[in-house]
Amino acid sequence: MQAYRELEERFARIATLTEMGEILHWDMSTKMPPGGAAGRADHLALQEVLSHQMITDPALADLLPAAAEEPLDDWQRANLAEMRRRWLHATALDGVLVDRLAKAATATEMAWRTARETSDFAAVRPLLGGLLALIREKAAALSEALGLTPYDALLDAYEPGGRIRDIEPVFDELAAFLPGFLSEVLERQARAPAPLDPPGPFDRARQTGLAHGLMADLGFDFDRGRLDSTFHPFCGGTPDDTRVTTRYDDDDLTEGLMCVIHETGHALYEQGLPRSWRRQPVGEARGMSLHESQSLLFEMQLCRSRDFFEFAAPRLAAAFDGSGPAWSADNLYRRAIRVERGFIRVEADEVTYPAHVILRTRLERAMVAGDLDVADLPGAWNDGMAELLGVVPPDDRRGCLQDIHWYGGDFGYFPTYTLGAMTAAQIFAVARRRLPDLAQDIRRGDFGPLLDWLRREIHGRASLLSTGDLLRQVTGEPLNPAFFEEHLRARYLP
Amino acid sequence: MQAYRELEERFARIATLTEMGEILHWDMSTKMPPGGAAGRADHLALQEVLSHQMITDPALADLLPAAAEEPLDDWQRANLAEMRRRWLHATALDGVLVDRLAKAATATEMAWRTARETSDFAAVRPLLGGLLALIREKAAALSEALGLTPYDALLDAYEPGGRIRDIEPVFDELAAFLPGFLSEVLERQARAPAPLDPPGPFDRARQTGLAHGLMADLGFDFDRGRLDSTFHPFCGGTPDDTRVTTRYDDDDLTEGLMCVIHETGHALYEQGLPRSWRRQPVGEARGMSLHESQSLLFEMQLCRSRDFFEFAAPRLAAAFDGSGPAWSADNLYRRAIRVERGFIRVEADEVTYPAHVILRTRLERAMVAGDLDVADLPGAWNDGMAELLGVVPPDDRRGCLQDIHWYGGDFGYFPTYTLGAMTAAQIFAVARRRLPDLAQDIRRGDFGPLLDWLRREIHGRASLLSTGDLLRQVTGEPLNPAFFEEHLRARYLP
Repeated sequence: MQAYRELEERFARIATLTEMGEILHWDMSTKMPPGGAAGRADHLALQEVLSHQMITDPALADLLPAAAEEPLDDWQRANLAEMRRRWLHATALDGVLVDRLAKAATATEMAWRTARETSDFAAVRPLLGGLLALIREKAAALSEALGLTPYDALLDAYEPGGRIRDIEPVFDELAAFLPGFLSEVLERQARAPAPLDPPGPFDRARQTGLAHGLMADLGFDFDRGRLDSTFHPFCGGTPDDTRVTTRYDDDDLTEGLMCVIHETGHALYEQGLPRSWRRQPVGEARGMSLHESQSLLFEMQLCRSRDFFEFAAPRLAAAFDGSGPAWSADNLYRRAIRVERGFIRVEADEVTYPAHVILRTRLERAMVAGDLDVADLPGAWNDGMAELLGVVPPDDRRGCLQDIHWYGGDFGYFPTYTLGAMTAAQIFAVARRRLPDLAQDIRRGDFGPLLDWLRREIHGRASLLSTGDLLRQVTGEPLNPAFFEEHLRARYLP
Repeated sequence: MQAYRELEERFARIATLTEMGEILHWDMSTKMPPGGAAGRADHLALQEVLSHQMITDPALADLLPAAAEEPLDDWQRANLAEMRRRWLHATALDGVLVDRLAKAATATEMAWRTARETSDFAAVRPLLGGLLALIREKAAALSEALGLTPYDALLDAYEPGGRIRDIEPVFDELAAFLPGFLSEVLERQARAPAPLDPPGPFDRARQTGLAHGLMADLGFDFDRGRLDSTFHPFCGGTPDDTRVTTRYDDDDLTEGLMCVIHETGHALYEQGLPRSWRRQPVGEARGMSLHESQSLLFEMQLCRSRDFFEFAAPRLAAAFDGSGPAWSADNLYRRAIRVERGFIRVEADEVTYPAHVILRTRLERAMVAGDLDVADLPGAWNDGMAELLGVVPPDDRRGCLQDIHWYGGDFGYFPTYTLGAMTAAQIFAVARRRLPDLAQDIRRGDFGPLLDWLRREIHGRASLLSTGDLLRQVTGEPLNPAFFEEHLRARYLP
């Protein structure tokens, strides 16, 4: 197994470099003074360049077929397949295109920051047009190398094995279900009295203390990670040094906590990856939809539930010396599941969120296919919002300028948010069947049995199976939007 | 200038990698959870391996003589000379020796941590012996490549251009001066009433606030750096993102602050390096003795002075609502300059510190030369302490086990501490002549004129000149211990 072993060493080195970039990125977002910005961009760019050099080293290309001839077990074979997938992605693009793309993405993202602030799409339109042309070149080259359609080739980088032919019917089904369902939910919500807001402001240090306690309750290992605050929350770092970040709202206690819980879901996946496969491709998280399924399982399935607030409400009240009806479990729960037709994806509730994602998926597919010109994006966006959500943004800042993804060169990422939401619903439905005491455990604040089950069924398997096969093994069927719809019905139209 | 330009690019890339290591090292010491330790060791090792690969790339070796033929200005020529010096150091050792040294140093340092705790020199003696044998191999190889004596070849890595033939007479002069001087100081000190300790404990948050204020007063740019706490204080990061760390003592206010001031001295040097030479060897700090001279200039020359406490005492009192004689400038000053015959270098005052350094310098020279066997180290240590300081440590924990340097493979570093102290005294004496209002500025807390002068004379010149030439240009003469002795006399026997 000489070739395979050498591949393991090479990929471990690439992963080590990636980890260095993860910590440097975390530092940039949480600790770095402004003067460090230019230097840090160079650090992260050098990490990318060196990683790219390592994976495209001609010697590595020779090892892949040699290793395939060696006697490998299931994990090793899956590891080799992942190595090959990454190698194909890395070698499909020539250096000139990679360089042009990186520069165009940086320039477009910079222009976008100003354009969003001033709601001036025209100011970024030419740059976005140029970037899209390069993305289409990239998609064509990847398509050729991977034997996938251009859009699937882009998607595959975020969602290995993800194919639009599987996603489209699921999204269409949701798009048909949601508008009517949303109207019903809003009508029902309007008939009930509005929940009460616990009165703020909420001291930052107490919120932080509460967040640490809750993370520990959920199973986060603080010997192998930490919590800090940042403007755009994320979960980064490594499986043994997982960096969760969150943003606190001085006037809204639960939003900060739900953000912590969401990122903790990501973190628990990372911390649960198998130690014996550290720094090997097969030992990493399966893909973005499964990653998002873990964050949404914790945030949406587990913690925006009545059972969870039975546990959490007395703790929140105690932490802020709160009393009265605003602090009751029922009130806090109803507050956590308010639904609203809004313009902004990142502020959307779980009922309206898929509409935002379906819109973006349709538009980016059309752009990659050459069927939608960048000049027509604002109009198409607003038409889609009217159709899917029944509202039209008053300006592009709250429309097609709101998300960084396209302006930073990320096409093919958006579907994973809603794939993750549906996957979370499907996995949690099965967890409830497998763990008959789950509701009671949650009310008592004992999240250990659920985490143990997730570790065994999902986290510990890392990238051994494809996302589809893993979901079939855990739940007995492929991705089925009925679970998500059933979850929404049970929560919002009980 | 094609060859020279390509060298600049290559060295900028190496420096970028070094910066990544700096931030990762800072993170390790200040933020990293314990679970990240093993992974972080891999990150730092990979950074070293990649840097070594880059500098020993055969293509680089060809560029050095080619660039020497090109028309270069003074800075470029100094840059090329520094490149060559680094290349000589890097290529002098074969990969096998580097690897064996790294492993032996790690193993010895690990064993030392336990041995120091239990004061059991015998437990680490065989490993230290093995490590010393490799250090002697390294010294021989470097000696061959650099045309220096083996000890000078080691010293040159920390103190470029430093030669023991220049250091020895200076150290001998000090060793002759200090014992008698120390006795006089201690006698005089004993005759005066002991200074009062301001009563603690001192709230950590207020100490931190005070430290931030003081750093800003001294000229530290918080847009290009930050302050955190750690167990072993240091100054790290990059010139545009300088990370100062300190340790606070709950019961001793001034020790924490003096530590901040010391590290701020290092940081001001880094922040004052010329921007136009960022990431080039000539743009970096000159060497360890000059670096230490900047920290000691701020800590010992500037801030352990009566003038400084005239400024600082009212601020300290206000920060902790202190009043009475313990908070007077005179009392705090006398407290800050207490002298004691102690066993521990890092706790030593400026009068006894050189004795610790001279002892270590003599011993490490003898070990590198093969004249002192590791088995005889504890005895030689204690004999030297008796001779130089008049005290004998009661155990090896407070003797030859106290410092990490040798156990981590650092031989040739120790002299730079006392070279730095003497250099600081010499530079500050000249600063006082050049800036006639300096004493008054200090009492008013206006440190701008001094920093401007240091920026112009020292920081902004980076590695353009050798340490010796720089000192001659700034002060008009080579390193002269009379400045340090005069400083001690003026402060301790006024």
